[in-house]
Amino acid sequence: MLTLDKVYHAGYVLKNVIRKTDVIKAPRINPEADVYLKTENLQTTGSFKIRGSYYKISQLSDEEKSRGVIACSAGNHAQGVALAATKNGIKSLICLPDSAPISKVEATKRYGAEVCLVKGVYDDAYNRALELRDKEGYTFIHPFNDEQVIAGQGTIALEIIDQIADLDAVVVPIGGGGLISGVAYTIKNLNPNVKVYGVQATGAPSMANSIHDGHIERLDSVSTIADGIAVKEPGDLTYEICKQYVDEIVTVSDDEIAAAILALIEQQKLIAEGAGAVSVAAVMFNKVPVKGKKVCCLVSGGNIDVTILSRVIKRGLLMSGRNFQLTIELIDKPGQLLDVARIIAELGGNVTSIHHERANEGSDVNGCYLRVNMETRNAEHKEQIRQGLLDAGFRLVK
Amino acid sequence: MLTLDKVYHAGYVLKNVIRKTDVIKAPRINPEADVYLKTENLQTTGSFKIRGSYYKISQLSDEEKSRGVIACSAGNHAQGVALAATKNGIKSLICLPDSAPISKVEATKRYGAEVCLVKGVYDDAYNRALELRDKEGYTFIHPFNDEQVIAGQGTIALEIIDQIADLDAVVVPIGGGGLISGVAYTIKNLNPNVKVYGVQATGAPSMANSIHDGHIERLDSVSTIADGIAVKEPGDLTYEICKQYVDEIVTVSDDEIAAAILALIEQQKLIAEGAGAVSVAAVMFNKVPVKGKKVCCLVSGGNIDVTILSRVIKRGLLMSGRNFQLTIELIDKPGQLLDVARIIAELGGNVTSIHHERANEGSDVNGCYLRVNMETRNAEHKEQIRQGLLDAGFRLVK
Repeated sequence: MLTLDKVYHAGYVLKNVIRKTDVIKAPRINPEADVYLKTENLQTTGSFKIRGSYYKISQLSDEEKSRGVIACSAGNHAQGVALAATKNGIKSLICLPDSAPISKVEATKRYGAEVCLVKGVYDDAYNRALELRDKEGYTFIHPFNDEQVIAGQGTIALEIIDQIADLDAVVVPIGGGGLISGVAYTIKNLNPNVKVYGVQATGAPSMANSIHDGHIERLDSVSTIADGIAVKEPGDLTYEICKQYVDEIVTVSDDEIAAAILALIEQQKLIAEGAGAVSVAAVMFNKVPVKGKKVCCLVSGGNIDVTILSRVIKRGLLMSGRNFQLTIELIDKPGQLLDVARIIAELGGNVTSIHHERANEGSDVNGCYLRVNMETRNAEHKEQIRQGLLDAGFRLVK
Repeated sequence: MLTLDKVYHAGYVLKNVIRKTDVIKAPRINPEADVYLKTENLQTTGSFKIRGSYYKISQLSDEEKSRGVIACSAGNHAQGVALAATKNGIKSLICLPDSAPISKVEATKRYGAEVCLVKGVYDDAYNRALELRDKEGYTFIHPFNDEQVIAGQGTIALEIIDQIADLDAVVVPIGGGGLISGVAYTIKNLNPNVKVYGVQATGAPSMANSIHDGHIERLDSVSTIADGIAVKEPGDLTYEICKQYVDEIVTVSDDEIAAAILALIEQQKLIAEGAGAVSVAAVMFNKVPVKGKKVCCLVSGGNIDVTILSRVIKRGLLMSGRNFQLTIELIDKPGQLLDVARIIAELGGNVTSIHHERANEGSDVNGCYLRVNMETRNAEHKEQIRQGLLDAGFRLVK
């Protein structure tokens, strides 16, 4: 049985292992609320996961420790278990699907784990881990459906309550439900007046659906940029705790998550991964009732692949009018390119690429296309440039 | 005269205005040193500047306050002065060159300042500000060459010394020298054993040159992605303090700064602007002697334009082999594109764009070029794909 005692004990055990991450005011995320961020993206290993896995591993018997631990994860849990095992002086083996990004594999090795790459997807790696547990005697460390793991994550709530006076609500990402179980259990037992809201990705609403329908449900597939919370099925422990202690679960779309990631970069100078930003997205887009309230968004992690980050930024720039792509149909005579370049320059567009192409199908046989990519200031500036080209007699495609 | 008393007094005045920003361990920046980051990028307004400007403004006489303040800046100083004035309940006018990014203009207005856009560059805006001071009676707030501003920046050193025991060295960005003057003066007066290293951009080494040559020098031009420290001439106050208290000044290139920005994103989940990352670049690339030492890099700010950030990330990805652009010369016959696509897919390259073009000058009249852009895992992976295409008989250009 989970008790506050266990959460406090976890806090004591973790004292010299984890960072007490800062709480930072975020005044522009939602101007109608008093918003704070609990920055677990700045935690050792780049996510909160080290809390639960370290506490779990520290509580194993000597005999269990001697056999080593095994876990399955394509992400933050792998790194948490790897570092926790190393710090406890024991062996760890992490099963990863062979499609996992090389950066995650490298990080897991760097924290001292042995890595077993399994052909296929997460489920294949998971089954392989259970097989190895049975065959080799490793202790399996579940990423969320474990009382001690949940108690470890609950230590975040102890810190939040200590760091923010008169809190009205916390907003917490949900994948399998380990994080929110620890946070909700702890907060509600200390102060039932604080609301606890959970957030899932629209493309992976397993806990939301399960709670809504009153029994655990398994999704056939999940699809979201928030890979850290793309979980098909909640655990039975986490399901029961969420049912009892969580006030409401909402979902956010991938576009909303991307906008939250960009807002955290621009306004707060913080990198969050998709899963870490869903709490912020929920508050930004008023998915939870926060008007006039003091709210803490738990930013659970920051382990986002730079390639993906680069795409998110690009999409954010496009959406906010700071990147502008357009295709112009030119008549094939000298001086046309010069005119276009002049108009764009005069209006302050900063061209980053030009692609000039003759006589495609569908265009006049004398015509050609000019595809221009430029940096612009905002949607209004984009419109000025579009209008300037139209006024000069150019035809724009699309 | 600057005294420790003034720095302590500034600390007292700033107590409820600024954040005591976290110090965060950064184990991978330089594996041979024990590296910490003082995260002033997470300071209110996104940089340390609020410390100096708030303290300065708070110490004005009532009569001076009633006339309002004026400043000139295209960046962090503008935001610092704007917020400091607003918090002191007085009027502020900030002169900005009209070429300043719209994001900085918006931020300055948001903190409550009136903005005066001046045609031209920084120097023009500066002259206009002095003109307005003389004509309208505003108090001019200098960005660095001011004793109270320097005392305000010195409060960072009080925090660092409190936050890190047994520190061996601090590494500090230098633009005009206000930040390092406050930090060096404070640290050396409290513990002369701590080394203080200054870092400038290779394209704007005004303080480095001045100290080296023994007198203040003015650069004709400056050029660096670290726009926050692109200062042509140090102040006389800051020059004297640096001469007396700074152990060494080094420079870092734009590529080194970009690598540091990317490392902070990937390893620490922090956004730094160019000026804020030079201290990290100096430690990453062993520009200062840190082997076996406990070192604190002052990350002075995080106000980087997202468009620039996006370019920095792109360049970092290219340099670390995670983005690969190549041009293939094809014989113009059906099936060639299919072959290329198959080879790249089999080797795990993720194509992001393809540009196919016939019969350029210089190529065989039957030939055509295929320019492919793809995401790769690392330099080794890039080489595998290059070799795979060569083995299949394709000719690569460049």
